[in-house]
Amino acid sequence: MASHAENMELDPRTRERSMYRMLTGTVVPRPIGWVSTTGPEGVDNLAPYSFFTVASIDPPVLLFSAGDRPGRPDDLSDTARNARETGEFVVNVVTEPFAEAMNETSATLPPGDSEFDHAGLERAASTAVDPPRVAGIEAAYECRLHDTVEVGSNTLVLGEVVYAHLSDGILTEEGKTDVGEVAAVGRLAGSGYCYTRERFRMERPD
Amino acid sequence: MASHAENMELDPRTRERSMYRMLTGTVVPRPIGWVSTTGPEGVDNLAPYSFFTVASIDPPVLLFSAGDRPGRPDDLSDTARNARETGEFVVNVVTEPFAEAMNETSATLPPGDSEFDHAGLERAASTAVDPPRVAGIEAAYECRLHDTVEVGSNTLVLGEVVYAHLSDGILTEEGKTDVGEVAAVGRLAGSGYCYTRERFRMERPD
Repeated sequence: MASHAENMELDPRTRERSMYRMLTGTVVPRPIGWVSTTGPEGVDNLAPYSFFTVASIDPPVLLFSAGDRPGRPDDLSDTARNARETGEFVVNVVTEPFAEAMNETSATLPPGDSEFDHAGLERAASTAVDPPRVAGIEAAYECRLHDTVEVGSNTLVLGEVVYAHLSDGILTEEGKTDVGEVAAVGRLAGSGYCYTRERFRMERPD
Repeated sequence: MASHAENMELDPRTRERSMYRMLTGTVVPRPIGWVSTTGPEGVDNLAPYSFFTVASIDPPVLLFSAGDRPGRPDDLSDTARNARETGEFVVNVVTEPFAEAMNETSATLPPGDSEFDHAGLERAASTAVDPPRVAGIEAAYECRLHDTVEVGSNTLVLGEVVYAHLSDGILTEEGKTDVGEVAAVGRLAGSGYCYTRERFRMERPD
């Protein structure tokens, strides 16, 4: 293991380059929240966010952090702006069969085009909110906007889960979520991703 | 792939059980922020948080979500309370050699005992903040409290990175972070973890 003396020390305030590469390279592996929204003109938007986590258990609240998009309305991504304006979004969990389609939805499309159509994805109707889910996805959470919080160059979008869809394949007989069946993919830096098949267990000490 | 009809639908508002298992089982894989703080009495605290992500790139801000601990002062975990009271914490990135020690630090210790000592970990002095880093860790971010945000049963703790320590082993010659060298471990549900060695690449479309 490296000792203190072998470390490179970096002060963000005197550093010229963005910390993007460093943070995305070390805060790993990141889960991918594939967020669907519907814009004011009715276009269904779908985009992946890996600055994504659980904000609260009770009530259940998910959050993702969207980077500012200078030049766009309100400097926000379509997803963040739609979520704020309509108060609704759906988080689809990205598993292996959907990895390539997820990547396709990160393309920049002309206004009015839907990433669902661009990536050849079917929509499935949601139950409590307007934006559709990705059909066939193993876990999807319908969310109502809880809050948005501006933090530096980003906007945190928090949504309370008002409805959950889980496929039979990831549920045990008792109706619990069996993570063993969730073949999620994780985000690393750059164009890197990881599988989650190689696992180990550690029992939490008392 | 499962169709809509094969899905189990769950409404959190009418569900008796907590959503903990479902959310931790599907928002995967999660990076682990191993957070060190120093309490008012000088005890060095160290605990893992997997509701952890990047909040902002510029300035660099990290966040973790700490679950309420009813019965503790302010109903907060030691880590969240120390961060709020002292305004300082360090996020140590958990890689394979540190996985077992990380798990040891999730034990509940008597007041006044340090998880550093309990898990046999050496402290390394930080540069800009008081709480020590974990010696030998590959990436550590010294943070000053940016804000705390209460969300349901949890408290989001946001800290601006004021100093970064990266070991030579994870840096390329240009001083960029080479994620290929970061053997991080990811958090799954229950006592499950994953390695991040099995990787793939997808170039982002234009």
